Amino acid sequence: MTFREDGAAALEWAARYLERVGELPVLAQVEPGEVRSRLPAAPPESGEPFADVLRDLDEILLPGTTHWQSPRFFAYFANSASEPGILAELLAATLNSVAFIWRTSPASTELEAHMLDWTAQLLGLPSGWHGHIEDTASVSTIAALAAAREANGGHVVVCSEEAHSSVERAARLLGLETRKVPLDAEFRLDPTAVDLADAAALVATVGTTSTTAVDPVPLLADACEAADVWLHVDAAYAGSAWVCPELRWSQEGVERADSVVVNAHKWLFTPMDCSLLWTRKPEALRAAFSLVPEYLRTSDEAESLSDYGPALGRRFRSLKLWAVLRCYGREGLQVRIRETVRLAEQFESSVRDEPGWELCAPRRFSVVCFRRDGSDGENEAIVERVNRSGEAFLSQTRLNGRYVIRLAIGSERTTEDDVRRAWDALRAAAAG
Amino acid sequence: MTFREDGAAALEWAARYLERVGELPVLAQVEPGEVRSRLPAAPPESGEPFADVLRDLDEILLPGTTHWQSPRFFAYFANSASEPGILAELLAATLNSVAFIWRTSPASTELEAHMLDWTAQLLGLPSGWHGHIEDTASVSTIAALAAAREANGGHVVVCSEEAHSSVERAARLLGLETRKVPLDAEFRLDPTAVDLADAAALVATVGTTSTTAVDPVPLLADACEAADVWLHVDAAYAGSAWVCPELRWSQEGVERADSVVVNAHKWLFTPMDCSLLWTRKPEALRAAFSLVPEYLRTSDEAESLSDYGPALGRRFRSLKLWAVLRCYGREGLQVRIRETVRLAEQFESSVRDEPGWELCAPRRFSVVCFRRDGSDGENEAIVERVNRSGEAFLSQTRLNGRYVIRLAIGSERTTEDDVRRAWDALRAAAAG
Repeated sequence: MTFREDGAAALEWAARYLERVGELPVLAQVEPGEVRSRLPAAPPESGEPFADVLRDLDEILLPGTTHWQSPRFFAYFANSASEPGILAELLAATLNSVAFIWRTSPASTELEAHMLDWTAQLLGLPSGWHGHIEDTASVSTIAALAAAREANGGHVVVCSEEAHSSVERAARLLGLETRKVPLDAEFRLDPTAVDLADAAALVATVGTTSTTAVDPVPLLADACEAADVWLHVDAAYAGSAWVCPELRWSQEGVERADSVVVNAHKWLFTPMDCSLLWTRKPEALRAAFSLVPEYLRTSDEAESLSDYGPALGRRFRSLKLWAVLRCYGREGLQVRIRETVRLAEQFESSVRDEPGWELCAPRRFSVVCFRRDGSDGENEAIVERVNRSGEAFLSQTRLNGRYVIRLAIGSERTTEDDVRRAWDALRAAAAG
Repeated sequence: MTFREDGAAALEWAARYLERVGELPVLAQVEPGEVRSRLPAAPPESGEPFADVLRDLDEILLPGTTHWQSPRFFAYFANSASEPGILAELLAATLNSVAFIWRTSPASTELEAHMLDWTAQLLGLPSGWHGHIEDTASVSTIAALAAAREANGGHVVVCSEEAHSSVERAARLLGLETRKVPLDAEFRLDPTAVDLADAAALVATVGTTSTTAVDPVPLLADACEAADVWLHVDAAYAGSAWVCPELRWSQEGVERADSVVVNAHKWLFTPMDCSLLWTRKPEALRAAFSLVPEYLRTSDEAESLSDYGPALGRRFRSLKLWAVLRCYGREGLQVRIRETVRLAEQFESSVRDEPGWELCAPRRFSVVCFRRDGSDGENEAIVERVNRSGEAFLSQTRLNGRYVIRLAIGSERTTEDDVRRAWDALRAAAAG
């Protein structure tokens, strides 16, 4: 293998993929087991050329790939890995730093802390908070709830019925109970229904997964402060919107949180995985996680970010965030976030203006919840028809007991034409 | 930005780095805070060229980098990210798949399951076990212990005094107690001292961090079976050795474990992060983690690997393992593992033959534990002198109350000359 030649082939593959991803069916058009059935049952005895890996990537894996980078990926929280972020992952893998203590990777440890400060500035979060990166919001939530348990000894996690499932998963892992609070008419946590008895933490969501509703954080902060309960804000998706001043209304009260998570890999153009966790109480995270064995002791007076979460080994994740923040700058991020919101507004208008369709929740950011007049089954059939066509990929939720279609925009590659094509495909599917 | 031009520059940077990494000081020669002090206090307002990122990578980050890819990185468990693995990370970031359920990335989900089967074949593990990838052994251990708690309801985790610190961290996270078993004369868990009362799990280590000792797994499996206790085997480092038949003596009894972790990013030439977790009881992992909310429900009859661990979002980690297994094959892996063991044997001989130095633990794989006659302080000073010189990077442990130097070999780039240079540096440092 020659690294330069094989690397040039890999880079060319990546470049062509990004050029043509819009032409590929968005949802993988395969049945379960189909990819595996095309792979050899046993690994090779002798080494094969890297070119064979690229060939099989095209022939075996690509037909089984759901294209998250497609401009018509509108499911879940759509996102995109930007080009600077992708290239930074090549560099991170080349360095292969493992930052479990400061001296094993000073650059990675300090760049991570610094990028969390930069991002806090971009998002308008309070200065002086402690920030580090976890792989996913699920793990950031585990870290925050473990700190909450350490800080106040409660054994209940309070959140709304629309909180992300990772909150209940994290609570279960930690041996905590989950107490779900009912919603108000706009799918926000109803603050009048909060019971904080025995609570370790309350998780408020800014941008729920179903509808991107924003829980009333200021009122919840009041309640948490009065009861000495840890306030964790899950802004995994919507937090990136705070780079735009006109969307910072959704940040009200967040400055009073004990911890906040924002996933840069969701709406900040950074490749998976890059979940940003800030806290005003780093000592509680350290109390939950720090444990330094003999073989990791050093005389360095520098903090180790592995003291703040479950994993000891830490990949150089901040490098890609650095590349994105450098190459896009505040203005570039604002332009891209605003464009996704503008496209969502346009789609919302299309649905509002079309007889036989209805909007099902207030649109706050870049996600639209809607449905066609008719049964749940008819709506589900519409979504499945569009998804199976490969033209666009959408997902669903359930609101007030009804099946609701979600169209989420988050890719920097999505254009007006892509959104129009999704809308055309939906109407065609509805027409049968 | 043009992806092809910037990509070519990034690739050239990576190629040159790998060519010259052996000439750079292995341990970063900076003080805490030095890297941060050179970074701008605020992020840029407007986007900057990617070339500026590469420039600052050289000028600001590289002096603060501890070079894990250096052939003279001998600390902790030395490892190396191979070239096929590095290029596969570029491809994974390009695809940016997020495999939280099957349909969001069939190729990633199925390749992951398939690569765990391939690796099980290479390592001689039982067929039919369920395998998936976590980021680190810390998180794999959390998953295994959560499953154990679910399976039998115990509240104690039993392990040796030399078990990795992540076991105690995981137990603490899960609200379990840790009960440490004393060691025998060769730093293995003493099976006569095991008390499994109220135990959820026993963690046996194959290749402890301090000395790479191998716990007596067959006897521990007997005890666990009799007491209905989950047996988790931590083979994070040494498990890769099982690709060589002559090292498979250390696998005895592992076929009776309930779960086993092997880190491909430790000694299988795969970039961080790639921790392989197998279990014979996948239903216990699912019971601990599965929770499917409405917005993730599908009619697909296919398993989601996020049901087996704490994180919901999952990066396409199997792609790099696939590239490594394809490009090296069984023979290529064997050649590389054997060479690191051979070099460790050579170093061991050098220490044995040199008056004034002693070996401190039996060498089982590619790690040598030794010390210079003299005080702990003198030995610590030797290590610090070598590390500060940049010539090689070693770490330490404590055995029978004494400071012990560890030299770990795991990089495919390490040669006889590199090991000799480390030995020369140690002797020079000892001579003052």
